[in-house]
Amino acid sequence: MSHGEQGWRQRLYLFLFDVHSPAGRRFEAFWVVITLCSVLTLFIESAEPHNIGLSIKEGSIFLLLEYIFTLLFSLEYVLRVLTTPRPFHYIFSFYGLVDLLTTLPLYFLWLWPDITLRYMMGIRLLRVLRLLRLIKLLRYMGSANVMWDTLVSARKKLFLFFGGVMIILCVFGGLMYVIEGPEHGFTSLPVSVYWAVVTMTTVGYGDITPHTPLGRMISSILILLGYSLIAIPTGVMSSYMTDVMQRNRQKRCCSVCKQTQHDDDAQYCKHCGGVLEDKHK
Amino acid sequence: MSHGEQGWRQRLYLFLFDVHSPAGRRFEAFWVVITLCSVLTLFIESAEPHNIGLSIKEGSIFLLLEYIFTLLFSLEYVLRVLTTPRPFHYIFSFYGLVDLLTTLPLYFLWLWPDITLRYMMGIRLLRVLRLLRLIKLLRYMGSANVMWDTLVSARKKLFLFFGGVMIILCVFGGLMYVIEGPEHGFTSLPVSVYWAVVTMTTVGYGDITPHTPLGRMISSILILLGYSLIAIPTGVMSSYMTDVMQRNRQKRCCSVCKQTQHDDDAQYCKHCGGVLEDKHK
Amino acid sequence: MSHGEQGWRQRLYLFLFDVHSPAGRRFEAFWVVITLCSVLTLFIESAEPHNIGLSIKEGSIFLLLEYIFTLLFSLEYVLRVLTTPRPFHYIFSFYGLVDLLTTLPLYFLWLWPDITLRYMMGIRLLRVLRLLRLIKLLRYMGSANVMWDTLVSARKKLFLFFGGVMIILCVFGGLMYVIEGPEHGFTSLPVSVYWAVVTMTTVGYGDITPHTPLGRMISSILILLGYSLIAIPTGVMSSYMTDVMQRNRQKRCCSVCKQTQHDDDAQYCKHCGGVLEDKHK
Amino acid sequence: MSHGEQGWRQRLYLFLFDVHSPAGRRFEAFWVVITLCSVLTLFIESAEPHNIGLSIKEGSIFLLLEYIFTLLFSLEYVLRVLTTPRPFHYIFSFYGLVDLLTTLPLYFLWLWPDITLRYMMGIRLLRVLRLLRLIKLLRYMGSANVMWDTLVSARKKLFLFFGGVMIILCVFGGLMYVIEGPEHGFTSLPVSVYWAVVTMTTVGYGDITPHTPLGRMISSILILLGYSLIAIPTGVMSSYMTDVMQRNRQKRCCSVCKQTQHDDDAQYCKHCGGVLEDKHK
Repeated sequence: MSHGEQGWRQRLYLFLFDVHSPAGRRFEAFWVVITLCSVLTLFIESAEPHNIGLSIKEGSIFLLLEYIFTLLFSLEYVLRVLTTPRPFHYIFSFYGLVDLLTTLPLYFLWLWPDITLRYMMGIRLLRVLRLLRLIKLLRYMGSANVMWDTLVSARKKLFLFFGGVMIILCVFGGLMYVIEGPEHGFTSLPVSVYWAVVTMTTVGYGDITPHTPLGRMISSILILLGYSLIAIPTGVMSSYMTDVMQRNRQKRCCSVCKQTQHDDDAQYCKHCGGVLEDKHK
Repeated sequence: MSHGEQGWRQRLYLFLFDVHSPAGRRFEAFWVVITLCSVLTLFIESAEPHNIGLSIKEGSIFLLLEYIFTLLFSLEYVLRVLTTPRPFHYIFSFYGLVDLLTTLPLYFLWLWPDITLRYMMGIRLLRVLRLLRLIKLLRYMGSANVMWDTLVSARKKLFLFFGGVMIILCVFGGLMYVIEGPEHGFTSLPVSVYWAVVTMTTVGYGDITPHTPLGRMISSILILLGYSLIAIPTGVMSSYMTDVMQRNRQKRCCSVCKQTQHDDDAQYCKHCGGVLEDKHK
Repeated sequence: MSHGEQGWRQRLYLFLFDVHSPAGRRFEAFWVVITLCSVLTLFIESAEPHNIGLSIKEGSIFLLLEYIFTLLFSLEYVLRVLTTPRPFHYIFSFYGLVDLLTTLPLYFLWLWPDITLRYMMGIRLLRVLRLLRLIKLLRYMGSANVMWDTLVSARKKLFLFFGGVMIILCVFGGLMYVIEGPEHGFTSLPVSVYWAVVTMTTVGYGDITPHTPLGRMISSILILLGYSLIAIPTGVMSSYMTDVMQRNRQKRCCSVCKQTQHDDDAQYCKHCGGVLEDKHK
Repeated sequence: MSHGEQGWRQRLYLFLFDVHSPAGRRFEAFWVVITLCSVLTLFIESAEPHNIGLSIKEGSIFLLLEYIFTLLFSLEYVLRVLTTPRPFHYIFSFYGLVDLLTTLPLYFLWLWPDITLRYMMGIRLLRVLRLLRLIKLLRYMGSANVMWDTLVSARKKLFLFFGGVMIILCVFGGLMYVIEGPEHGFTSLPVSVYWAVVTMTTVGYGDITPHTPLGRMISSILILLGYSLIAIPTGVMSSYMTDVMQRNRQKRCCSVCKQTQHDDDAQYCKHCGGVLEDKHK
């Protein structure tokens, strides 16, 4: 690849996909709108019960729109692969795989129309692939990264906490399995543990409920015990989130006065007015 | 308009609607009581199933009371329009539109008795218009303004948070749509997302519940993941509410000693005893 | 009344009911156990469906136990009235009325056996009167007073908050009443508001659920909005409870070194070792 | 017992069960994996409805696996009893009893095959005994100890709080028992109190729901009151957990520089680099 082509590719990449250039910002808005429109179309199409799959009737407005969205997302994927500095890194990255997978439903329908439409499972899978286009939006959301970083930082504490909670859930689920038994819906141990999760977290569907006096007493104890324990992840998450946000502020450093603590959305140094470097570099 | 009329109107406005004059305070109490009575009447009327609409039987106690309330609220609206310093600003303001709309039900009934009563929808709409009189009370509640200001201040963070949560909800809803399918109530994508909202927030109606082992496992993960994430708006709201209340305290400044930090309900400066200006000016 | 009798009465009162004398402490334990036994008996009796009322069959173990409890509580009431320094103040106080009412069920049964047993309502009322004996325990619980003081201190803020929440609940309930209508269980406005309370607080019984797409969308908004707002009373209560506990510590003052900040259960001054006065005096 | 044997036993104990030696750490991982495998097998076996008990069919994969797990856990128990410094203390300790009980199911089946398999209760009990193997994991979880210490420290406050809450629950349950009555599912006082627990904690199964207007109004009050009160254990738990974690840090003291405040997982003093003693000694 010649140097000139390299420069042309890099300029196109900055122009199209770098959210820190003015053109990139406008394209970001464009892709967000297209993605949201695509999902909205899917929702409207899916809400009508007599619509199956991509509503194969030729000329259907939904099929037409899906043609357009597939064309646009294919174009986006090809452009990203061609212009990105490290194509293979992109193709096998999380966002690369999501970009590819969510473009494919219509192609699957063209390749194997019989297989995908004969089985309800196939139709539903195609729909969900189109739904996953929402994940493309995550790359434009800074707050999603904060949440993800928080989950990663707190993973050890959360893991230990949920380990302890799982033991409590299994013990109580097992107790109810013995006390209530299959005749009241506690048909197996996994079902009883599912009941314990639904009860302790106060979701309480009511599809499985205790009927014996002893079972109801033990449910009440599980609920009240859970109420004292389940608040802990909240505290863990809050303290880690504060840490992550603080660390993010310290990562950005003004190149002029070398001071940190700039807000995520700041573009100029608040101490000397110098232009701040891109935080994602 | 002559200067004398201006003064007469302004004095009447201060007398009737300014909650900072002694007479205005008494009128405030009067309007609060009337509004609450009106809604209470509506509740009692609506609780009896054989009462439809405004119980058209002549001489009914409910119709009589509604005559009185409509008269009073019409009077209030006319007086407000006539005496307010900026009539057009009031008419097209939020409270102006609420005041007008909630006065109209009985007039609609007089104008189009056939249309409004033939359809259940019309009857129900008239009732809800009367219910919205409750919104008139918001203008007398300082704390409602604090909540509203908090929501407005935190709107960007809340928007990003709920954006991220919506993506999680859609992904889990889509997964359950594939796994459980229409035979277990997950008839379409919007329904599955509605299920995910009801589950992740621990409401748990139980109208749609997972039945397959895999579906129940994924529900449990959604519940426990949600439990770690959903607490975040609480923290966001708390910190913004503290900010808003702090800012409200700093807005009021004693005209004598120029010190701020006075409580919302303070009438005298706590540093020099001077009369504090009205904070709403 | 002679002075000797006065002294005799006061000594008996301190001996029997003052929880700060050693004998009073033992009597306190006695009354707590008796009250708990009485309620436990009631629960066991009530759990058997073929037992009605006080199980009138002569010789029944439950009737026998209730004879004993009624005798004991009657004795306690008479002793309290006779020995308390201000009999009329006690008789018309909250605890005095509770003591009297919860002693009466068996007497009612003797006086009007036909009336109380012919109607299920009468039987259930007698049972609940016996259940209210639990309220007698509150007088021995310091923490209950802290909770009550907190609720009283925070009443203005909580009132305003719940006022604002009620308006949101009524508006959303009204909207759902128009959208869903009686055919989906929203039969009247009070029922719709009850649905809104059950939904916004994440209780989610599932006895009334939205069925139309628009109704489900509005429910989701109510749930997510509620989730951001409903956490506020938690914060209000916490901050007021801290205040109340701090104030309680400052109320107790060592008579020797005049320093405050003693724990609720401290009996000696932590600064000079002097005996602390009773905090309830 | 000779000194040589003593030393041999102690070395074996350190080698096998002391989680602070390198070999002990590897054995810890081994036991955790075996325990999790054992419970996973149980879950898979229990999920198939036609499998009863230990699926007695000779040659079943589940029976074979249970043979292996029983052998391993028996070996572990015997080794622990033989090598532990204080055998009787271990045998009658909580973990000793759990280790013994969860090893026994297969032996019970060999001893009394008729009794345990004829009754569903017996089969279910054997399964739950195998499920309790999860409790063995608690000994490897430091955070579980923190939770337990927190519950023990806060037991007095939590006890008083739940005592107060129980009184509220009983009073509201009793009220609903009178108002709604058996015809709406409130068949007895314990059932009504169970309903109050499920409602106040926002679980809301929906198996018992109020149907009368008055009952729904009282339910709403219970929900909103509960919402203000039930957050208190969260606060109590948080503050005590902070205390317990702080105390744990202060318990560990560097033998070189005598400074405390080392993290739970620290192996070297952060002030002088000296090796820290085992915190569990």
